[in-house]
Amino acid sequence: MSKTNPGNFFEDYSVGQILNHATPRTLTEGDVALYTSLYGPRFAVQSSDEFARRLGYPRSPVDDLLLFHVVFGKTVPDVSLNAIANLGYAGGRFLKPAYPGDTLSTVSEVIGLKENSNKETGTVYVRSTGRNQRGEVVLEYTRWVMVRKRDKASPAPEAVVPQLADRVDPKDIGAAVPALDISAYDYAQAGAPYRWGDYEVGEKIDHVDGMTLEEAEHQMATRLYQNTAKVHFNQHTESKGRFGKRIVYGGVTISLARALSFNGLNNAFHIAAINGGRHVAPLFAGDTVYAWSEVLEKAELPGRTDVGALRTRLVAVKNQDASTFPFKKDDGGYADGVILDLDVWLVLPR
Amino acid sequence: MSKTNPGNFFEDYSVGQILNHATPRTLTEGDVALYTSLYGPRFAVQSSDEFARRLGYPRSPVDDLLLFHVVFGKTVPDVSLNAIANLGYAGGRFLKPAYPGDTLSTVSEVIGLKENSNKETGTVYVRSTGRNQRGEVVLEYTRWVMVRKRDKASPAPEAVVPQLADRVDPKDIGAAVPALDISAYDYAQAGAPYRWGDYEVGEKIDHVDGMTLEEAEHQMATRLYQNTAKVHFNQHTESKGRFGKRIVYGGVTISLARALSFNGLNNAFHIAAINGGRHVAPLFAGDTVYAWSEVLEKAELPGRTDVGALRTRLVAVKNQDASTFPFKKDDGGYADGVILDLDVWLVLPR
Amino acid sequence: MSKTNPGNFFEDYSVGQILNHATPRTLTEGDVALYTSLYGPRFAVQSSDEFARRLGYPRSPVDDLLLFHVVFGKTVPDVSLNAIANLGYAGGRFLKPAYPGDTLSTVSEVIGLKENSNKETGTVYVRSTGRNQRGEVVLEYTRWVMVRKRDKASPAPEAVVPQLADRVDPKDIGAAVPALDISAYDYAQAGAPYRWGDYEVGEKIDHVDGMTLEEAEHQMATRLYQNTAKVHFNQHTESKGRFGKRIVYGGVTISLARALSFNGLNNAFHIAAINGGRHVAPLFAGDTVYAWSEVLEKAELPGRTDVGALRTRLVAVKNQDASTFPFKKDDGGYADGVILDLDVWLVLPR
Repeated sequence: MSKTNPGNFFEDYSVGQILNHATPRTLTEGDVALYTSLYGPRFAVQSSDEFARRLGYPRSPVDDLLLFHVVFGKTVPDVSLNAIANLGYAGGRFLKPAYPGDTLSTVSEVIGLKENSNKETGTVYVRSTGRNQRGEVVLEYTRWVMVRKRDKASPAPEAVVPQLADRVDPKDIGAAVPALDISAYDYAQAGAPYRWGDYEVGEKIDHVDGMTLEEAEHQMATRLYQNTAKVHFNQHTESKGRFGKRIVYGGVTISLARALSFNGLNNAFHIAAINGGRHVAPLFAGDTVYAWSEVLEKAELPGRTDVGALRTRLVAVKNQDASTFPFKKDDGGYADGVILDLDVWLVLPR
Repeated sequence: MSKTNPGNFFEDYSVGQILNHATPRTLTEGDVALYTSLYGPRFAVQSSDEFARRLGYPRSPVDDLLLFHVVFGKTVPDVSLNAIANLGYAGGRFLKPAYPGDTLSTVSEVIGLKENSNKETGTVYVRSTGRNQRGEVVLEYTRWVMVRKRDKASPAPEAVVPQLADRVDPKDIGAAVPALDISAYDYAQAGAPYRWGDYEVGEKIDHVDGMTLEEAEHQMATRLYQNTAKVHFNQHTESKGRFGKRIVYGGVTISLARALSFNGLNNAFHIAAINGGRHVAPLFAGDTVYAWSEVLEKAELPGRTDVGALRTRLVAVKNQDASTFPFKKDDGGYADGVILDLDVWLVLPR
Repeated sequence: MSKTNPGNFFEDYSVGQILNHATPRTLTEGDVALYTSLYGPRFAVQSSDEFARRLGYPRSPVDDLLLFHVVFGKTVPDVSLNAIANLGYAGGRFLKPAYPGDTLSTVSEVIGLKENSNKETGTVYVRSTGRNQRGEVVLEYTRWVMVRKRDKASPAPEAVVPQLADRVDPKDIGAAVPALDISAYDYAQAGAPYRWGDYEVGEKIDHVDGMTLEEAEHQMATRLYQNTAKVHFNQHTESKGRFGKRIVYGGVTISLARALSFNGLNNAFHIAAINGGRHVAPLFAGDTVYAWSEVLEKAELPGRTDVGALRTRLVAVKNQDASTFPFKKDDGGYADGVILDLDVWLVLPR
């Protein structure tokens, strides 16, 4: 019997199944430096221990997306090694900050299964929970992927499709932000004066800058998260594949877009929730990523006057700037060049 | 009104204006490892905590140029986002060592302005000061850049061109080096026996080795410093630009040349001052960098017998080795292939 | 007289000669993060401080190969700057774990010399010893390289060829693994249930995955180890060289193959010894590396019931998968595509 992991096929999943993922991972200042080096984020809270301490953090928390990618990476060998597509995210909540020295591990539960009509593939819904070394939940989110069947003749399981909310309720977000002394927030150091009250629903922000991605960059990022999906790393097989080249891990697109969004959302220092998300089209090395945001909703956080929440749609596009806010075509499909449609709750000072 | 930063144009500056730059940045061991990985420096003081401690440092200080790049990077969004050229450096002094855990921030003062005769651009002189979390000045330097005017018709400001000394006076350098127990300096571990007294004014040193630069490397370096200048990152726009490709941040050239200079200046462990500097020609990914040095001057440091200073010209060239010491042509212009002319004070054991 | 290092030629070596290598190097969490980012290892002991602590380590030790590369890198300026080929390794023993904060230095002794019949080159055998800041030996190994003579007319030294054992005796390995509370070893977190007892001599394991290497990746890795061999970095000279391109440091191949071997050897968390090794063919950027292992021998470790040792042959191949276990041709030569043949002792739970 083989000792190597062939990955799971659609038949291997059952609703209620628990997947204990390898490998636990201690975050370090080295990971933070690499994250900065790979994407160029500039949010002051994550960049300066002094800035964070003055607000009430013990030190700078790690970037929310570094946390996300590490938690996510562990699920790949069990969930998406044979996946054809990463279909979507929903119900993501960041519940505790993570700091260098924290050790993360991930457990997932299969919460839905639906065979596709072609009988060759099916959709698997998993709810993944990332915990720190104290067992505290730092992040939970749902994602669903299209997975190959091992055998077309296998009987279809009973279809179970979970109810997924459109958005996380604002009363359920913000736990990862300690009570802050917001009077200590230095807007000059943070890069712009705009607070929660300065943003309007419907406002669109072109984040202006573009970033070209190299193969070495996305491979180094994806390995840092111990994400082993083959399509990101193996030119020998991908040269014969669908695109003829390696496909960039979707999380790299998210992180690039988020880092670009600093220009216009300088004080939105925390992603509190991922309401939903889709990787609309693949990104490849050599492509240039741009991003824009739209404010969808504003919410107070229960019992808090220090910070408020903005629900924004973060859209990434490639090889065209975002000044025209490219999004959807008249037929409802995504416009050419759109690669990411991500609906998040951001937290910023009031 | 846009919440994004359009950068400043020539009209936006006035002499005496203070620019408080975002984003404060805590240096870590992760930054140090990336710096080593990107350039390959081998100076023992910066490489070994044990070596540094035996001399009298609390631990290895971070490379002077990592400090420089982080302090410099912060100035880009306010000073050089619309710059056409980074014209020069002068009067740079390293005044305190920085260690992992220190948080750096930068403030600049506009000290000169001069419109160019074409009325389309002007030169802006800024004096930038990097401070640590205790408010101590770790680095100060002057640079001047050519910046576009927003409107050619804007009236020219009164021309103010600061007096810039040819060199930093040796009595003003060396403060970043604590009093050292130089008897503990292990020359075998440091890689060569040559001390201050072994170098002669006029001596030229070919640093021999060449290093080819990749796009991923200079992008990762430049993001690590949170330097956002567009020309380094955006192939989509640069493909239509002056060179058809991304331009490498000049600081990458400086760091590569400095790391190469270890071969011949092994014990010159500290850059105490940047007397002056010019990026003579652009560097691109795929180019190979070589370097040579000439000893211009030797100086004792007031009251110190542990270390002395060498003033050297560090010249970087590309795509040709440095064995012929390429520098200037008969007409006074730089020879083909020269990309950097940097005049520094180095500190080494006596 | 030149102050730069021209490297040693064959005539410069004598048996018994001691080489004190520069530069001492303090390992940090930054190095560990870069190592993860460059190769993607997933062994739980090295990845999670919590996992390591539950077993009895004070924290995660650094990857054995990071330790190896740093110790090895120091030898390059004195041993292999003028080397034509790195011929082999033998007798490597990992004797102490290393942790972030430890400072490594390396001393080598010349233990053999043999001029080649062409009188233009010779083989130099060195025994290198890596020590930590307490003077404890963390690693020792023998390697031999083919080095150019400065002058063909120089007289040949008396040939001394050291006796090199086929393998390290199992009674001499395992000292780097503290006594472990192996009942605390969590196989789900480690990624697979297979222990020492589950492997059979003769068993072959295809590690399945392939990894394509980029220029930026191997250059960043090799600089991280302060390995200065010119062939890895200088496209300007290598474009006119034997292969027309940069040659990847052989240690990068070893690390890639080792990281790939996690898939099938998930619990073999420690390399205790390098019995022997050969870089069979060069690796270049753009190549895709695959790996397979064969179990050659099993051994108990004296007085230990917590862990046992597997002697395995780790074979790396390029641009073809390893499912057919490519190794040698009928004539005894290596099959096309084989790039590494490494004989190691691995330690895993019993």
